[in-house]
Amino acid sequence: MQRYKAIVAYDGTDFSGYQVQPHKRTVQSVLETVLAKMHKGHEVKVSASGRTDAGVHAKGQVLHFDSPLSIPDEKWVIALNSLLPDDLSILKVEKVKESFHARFDAVGKEYRYRLLLSKSRDPFECRYSYRYPYKLNIEAMQDSCRYLVGEPHDFTSFCSAKTEVVDKVRTIETIDFLMDGDLLTIRFVGNGFLYNMVRILVGTLLEVGSGERVPEDLEEILKKKDRRFAGKTAPAHGLYLWEVFY
Amino acid sequence: MQRYKAIVAYDGTDFSGYQVQPHKRTVQSVLETVLAKMHKGHEVKVSASGRTDAGVHAKGQVLHFDSPLSIPDEKWVIALNSLLPDDLSILKVEKVKESFHARFDAVGKEYRYRLLLSKSRDPFECRYSYRYPYKLNIEAMQDSCRYLVGEPHDFTSFCSAKTEVVDKVRTIETIDFLMDGDLLTIRFVGNGFLYNMVRILVGTLLEVGSGERVPEDLEEILKKKDRRFAGKTAPAHGLYLWEVFY
Repeated sequence: MQRYKAIVAYDGTDFSGYQVQPHKRTVQSVLETVLAKMHKGHEVKVSASGRTDAGVHAKGQVLHFDSPLSIPDEKWVIALNSLLPDDLSILKVEKVKESFHARFDAVGKEYRYRLLLSKSRDPFECRYSYRYPYKLNIEAMQDSCRYLVGEPHDFTSFCSAKTEVVDKVRTIETIDFLMDGDLLTIRFVGNGFLYNMVRILVGTLLEVGSGERVPEDLEEILKKKDRRFAGKTAPAHGLYLWEVFY
Repeated sequence: MQRYKAIVAYDGTDFSGYQVQPHKRTVQSVLETVLAKMHKGHEVKVSASGRTDAGVHAKGQVLHFDSPLSIPDEKWVIALNSLLPDDLSILKVEKVKESFHARFDAVGKEYRYRLLLSKSRDPFECRYSYRYPYKLNIEAMQDSCRYLVGEPHDFTSFCSAKTEVVDKVRTIETIDFLMDGDLLTIRFVGNGFLYNMVRILVGTLLEVGSGERVPEDLEEILKKKDRRFAGKTAPAHGLYLWEVFY
């Protein structure tokens, strides 16, 4: 058996998220079906760096799997892609030590959230960014981030109450804002992110940008350690798992 | 009755082209259904600058329609967009003289064709560009264009045999090539384009780029006035009706 690390990209629109669910088209189930085809029907389990929700995209999701097949790395990419649908693509496959684990070995992640700041709809952006047609004070949003980045914080307030994780302390290294035309990309880099954390952070930052909250509220929300004090969860289709660091 | 000119954009992926067809989702039928809703069920016909095929996108298709409703131009945009699906969007509506005709008054059009020159698939590009993973001599493609642009030519060879148009003389003003990363955009501006003309031009240029033909062949193909001498029709999903000039 050889362990392989794979980097995959997907347009999350038509997937019911990453994880296998009965009767649903998920990233994991599509990948495992294709791997089973390559292994004469034998099940091959894939393990990802983390789940992504329905509608969330990935530019660089990482996963691992074990296979008895001895195929050169580039041939894996070609073979898998020839069987995969257009909205899911293998970018890279490489042999790794059998101790490698896509989730446990990850030391950090980058997520990006794309906002279309426009009154008019764009049919070419509707799957790939969240359109926010109202006034937005981006400076106030940037100002809020000083309460979030640099040192470890307990992000209980910014985490879906559904989570099973006990330790909710994470460190966000940087949050930056990139404006390109009417497209605002907010980039989050950190050592780990809780369930829905980026989407709740974005939803809360939008409430600061719209004037419903002030930047100083972020400090208060963190202290409360209660999901109810943070803002709304921003929609899935603006979110991208951009890169996983090892 | 007031005549209105509208500029619309659509992601062509999930439409069976522009024109109404029984039991099919087309751009025209979706627009007319929404207009009928705004007119208490009364039929409102829309006339476009020209049809687009299934899968072809539009960034600036133009159409006209007549309505007894007296609504300010910006309100038309908001009202129509609130009823239209995400993949079809009204960019602008303006009052025009009743003599205005979206097709007959058009004096030129710009089409763009997007090619993804990459060996690896990109799930975020698969709907919006044609992936060409082979070697391409772009200089030879550019060189071919001198036989096509600047003066009127009979484009019978570059036109689907299915067309009903009799006069096949058109003038292409410019064809230019824009490389951005691994994305090649070929831009066509001319006084008019025949059925499938841009796609057949792109298919033929690709055969020059791949070395199957030489630039000088273009002159010969034009002279033949026979579709069978030109190259393959490039796929619809790389093509955009970009702008219509009046």
